Amino acid sequence: MINEKVPAAPSIRRLPSYLHIIRQAQKDGYEFISGTVIAQELHLEPIQVRKDLTITGIIGKPKRGYPVVPLIAAIEHFLGWDSVKNAVIIGAGNLATALTGYQEFQLHGLNFVGAFDSDTSKIGGHIHGVPVFSMETLNTQVKNLGATIAVITVPSSYAQETADKAVSAGIKSIWNFTNVKLNLPDDVVSQREDLTSGYALLCVKMDADKPKRILE
Amino acid sequence: MINEKVPAAPSIRRLPSYLHIIRQAQKDGYEFISGTVIAQELHLEPIQVRKDLTITGIIGKPKRGYPVVPLIAAIEHFLGWDSVKNAVIIGAGNLATALTGYQEFQLHGLNFVGAFDSDTSKIGGHIHGVPVFSMETLNTQVKNLGATIAVITVPSSYAQETADKAVSAGIKSIWNFTNVKLNLPDDVVSQREDLTSGYALLCVKMDADKPKRILE
Repeated sequence: MINEKVPAAPSIRRLPSYLHIIRQAQKDGYEFISGTVIAQELHLEPIQVRKDLTITGIIGKPKRGYPVVPLIAAIEHFLGWDSVKNAVIIGAGNLATALTGYQEFQLHGLNFVGAFDSDTSKIGGHIHGVPVFSMETLNTQVKNLGATIAVITVPSSYAQETADKAVSAGIKSIWNFTNVKLNLPDDVVSQREDLTSGYALLCVKMDADKPKRILE
Repeated sequence: MINEKVPAAPSIRRLPSYLHIIRQAQKDGYEFISGTVIAQELHLEPIQVRKDLTITGIIGKPKRGYPVVPLIAAIEHFLGWDSVKNAVIIGAGNLATALTGYQEFQLHGLNFVGAFDSDTSKIGGHIHGVPVFSMETLNTQVKNLGATIAVITVPSSYAQETADKAVSAGIKSIWNFTNVKLNLPDDVVSQREDLTSGYALLCVKMDADKPKRILE
């Protein structure tokens, strides 16, 4: 059971930013990109970037750096972003509308095939082209639509029961936008997106004396 | 300049989850909570939790654990969550509507005092009680409303110019929900919320053989 326990999680979290910069280098016509250039763009140490990129299996060449095209392919393959994954989103509110409209996800193979809500005024409508279905149809729709991921954007008090329904419907991967730690079977993986974590970091940065005194 | 470079960032990111669990222990009537209990709840190693909590300055007692009330106060104080911070949100779309409606932020002192948009059909309205103003009034409103934080939820192509306007208006802290790395003056701190990072982690967890092979 690897849930919540990916050893290289901070490295993996940085890969999308690297990909963004390397893709830009490709657009700008570069054949190679150095770890130092990536590091400068992101205010990281070059050694950190080189270490992170070893998990993709691509080796940089001395003085030239990493070959751009193979490196993009390797990062995308490592992340599984070179294959399309169908997802349902449960809770068709503002956050769901924001997420289904986020074009970058499509670039990374995340394909929203259906949204679900218990609000009858939403059912039958669409959010960014994604049809909104009744919660009662979750089981059949997950199968019909070939969905493997459930993105949960319901109010936190409904998080666990929603996750249970998704698991019953056959979902094995849950992206959880609530503040609830879900109890899930061992064969279901999950990732919780905690917006208060980013806010915590911003707040500590705002109090500039504190990190210097306590953290260094 | 500490932007993007907070050494204990992973520890700080975990503090909100600890706070959540410790608050629940307080509600349940506990006077002490052990690092082991927190670790179990979050599938972390106890030594990691104890190490993270040292940055708050509170010391646990052998066999009893941490005193709940002082620990809550210490985490909140460390994060600056014991004081109210007024924020403007720029880009009054679906993500802004989701964020202003996220009640947990209020618990942490984040007070949205105004939203800004260039869409005249939105100006004069409200999102979750937060008034929507014209972008032209940003300078005067930031001062009138006493805002110190700008949350940027515009499309990525407008990110830099929006940040420039926020900085011109006197904002010193930016929470950036676009996928653009902003160029900011040295006295402005920022935190970028990258939703693709979480998706990257979920994807790696889904491919369960890969982490075991490459990451362990």
